[in-house]
Amino acid sequence: MSHDAETTVGVIGLGSMGLGIAQSLLRRGAKVAGYDINPAATTRLVESGGRAAASPGDATHNADIAVVVVVNAAQTEAALFNDDGAAATMKPGGCVVSCATMDPDDARALARRAEARGLHYLDAPISGGAVKAAAGQLTVMASGSALAFERARPVLDSIAATVYELGDAAGAGASFKMVNQLLAGAHIAAACEAMTFAAKLGLDLPTVYKVITASAGNSWMFENRVPHILEGDYHPRSAVEIFTKDLGIVSEMGRREKFPLQIAATALQMFLMTAAAKMEKDDDASVARMIAKITGVELPSQGNAK
Amino acid sequence: MSHDAETTVGVIGLGSMGLGIAQSLLRRGAKVAGYDINPAATTRLVESGGRAAASPGDATHNADIAVVVVVNAAQTEAALFNDDGAAATMKPGGCVVSCATMDPDDARALARRAEARGLHYLDAPISGGAVKAAAGQLTVMASGSALAFERARPVLDSIAATVYELGDAAGAGASFKMVNQLLAGAHIAAACEAMTFAAKLGLDLPTVYKVITASAGNSWMFENRVPHILEGDYHPRSAVEIFTKDLGIVSEMGRREKFPLQIAATALQMFLMTAAAKMEKDDDASVARMIAKITGVELPSQGNAK
Repeated sequence: MSHDAETTVGVIGLGSMGLGIAQSLLRRGAKVAGYDINPAATTRLVESGGRAAASPGDATHNADIAVVVVVNAAQTEAALFNDDGAAATMKPGGCVVSCATMDPDDARALARRAEARGLHYLDAPISGGAVKAAAGQLTVMASGSALAFERARPVLDSIAATVYELGDAAGAGASFKMVNQLLAGAHIAAACEAMTFAAKLGLDLPTVYKVITASAGNSWMFENRVPHILEGDYHPRSAVEIFTKDLGIVSEMGRREKFPLQIAATALQMFLMTAAAKMEKDDDASVARMIAKITGVELPSQGNAK
Repeated sequence: MSHDAETTVGVIGLGSMGLGIAQSLLRRGAKVAGYDINPAATTRLVESGGRAAASPGDATHNADIAVVVVVNAAQTEAALFNDDGAAATMKPGGCVVSCATMDPDDARALARRAEARGLHYLDAPISGGAVKAAAGQLTVMASGSALAFERARPVLDSIAATVYELGDAAGAGASFKMVNQLLAGAHIAAACEAMTFAAKLGLDLPTVYKVITASAGNSWMFENRVPHILEGDYHPRSAVEIFTKDLGIVSEMGRREKFPLQIAATALQMFLMTAAAKMEKDDDASVARMIAKITGVELPSQGNAK
């Protein structure tokens, strides 16, 4: 579906995901303004035909939809409800599409505040990475009222290949995303543990990759992240600090629900150990480097790998 | 490749895997005798055209190849080297194809003993499950001398869709299998943790399955085992005790190598908790029932589920 000329969208947060979303919207004919705390981030948006805004509220001035693509709940709250925030400038009845990964309780609280201001709120965490964001092929795990879905539909159709409709209230989208992140983090930690152990056992690591990806031990994350280890390339496609954050949220949720999460807790500690060893800005496959560093195992290295 | 009429094979251990292997060999024209500690297990072998043997050594009497498909290293050792064992009755220069999952050190020790008796030894753990065993479509992770591979080739061709040749000495095959089992066990534990947590969060479990299997949180084990949880069907396709055994071997290997295996250790404890709760003979997805029992979460149930 294309946007009619009147659809205006403000995108708050122009990292690799937010920029790709903004560009996908522009390709489909929406009027897009964007804001990022780093002013340089707006350059590529302007090159793609968007408008650089000076604040979240400037990006969403008279907008039908605000797409918030920041790191966490606190940044989402600031983008929406600070004095220069989006809630004050959007069209009445506009819709917030909230993409950050966050605690479902935070999603519910943000939805209540938005609705109290006469806005709709779609709890809409995304996955797929920068390449899919740029291609308008994200996966969205969304929940919210029928009206929120209706308002957000042109945006969802422009940015996503798959939209899961997961419930009629904020919180469900966030919950699904957290379950996914629990598994994703656990599988990265397991992949790094298994590959360093294979190195300790003297196995040929590319052969381990070939055999495991064709066997019952495979995971999406094993298949995706182990090549970083094989190439010795730890520049961040997704950083360690994403999983200290996301497994931190999972851990907090488990504590609140009185629900033991043993695998997730162990994986979180492994990401924290990796962050403590000064790799938190590096690729999340750096968990393998952390284990290698402790155990003295040699992993493949690359000229530009640390 | 078909076997010439002279190829005789003894199969020791006629559980679902061993029986499928024996039947695959019979279909390809080999002469097969089989032994199992449970005499009833030979019935289906005889129905398929094989000979029921009274001991391991009887099964391998004058055999070119002994395929040992028992549970662990101790049973393999007994099958080969007890007084009524295979090593005493095989043709000189025959080849042992050892399929049990075991510590690589045990595989190396068994190979040395077999070779001291003038036999060849292929370290050849299998994966794929009963259906693929019956179809002759197993995956074999094999290592051994060129001569061991040469002797075992007609058997491998009859029982496997894929044979990984992983090195020229016993131990490598077992090591690859253990790395696979580490990941497989960790992923089952993670899947059970994630699904019970999703239930605690009030999410619709079939929808969780649909979303996760299409997302970055997916694993081979998540995709394969979660349907057991959704159906409330815990009759053992693969039992909890397989993973207390295999992650126990992984744990022992880690201790010997002074190599920390945090995820594997956590997963082992979860399988042990499930075994302690009297589910060790049930399907390994019972880890989810154990967590549900502790936390009071309700999972789907079935008439015949406990």
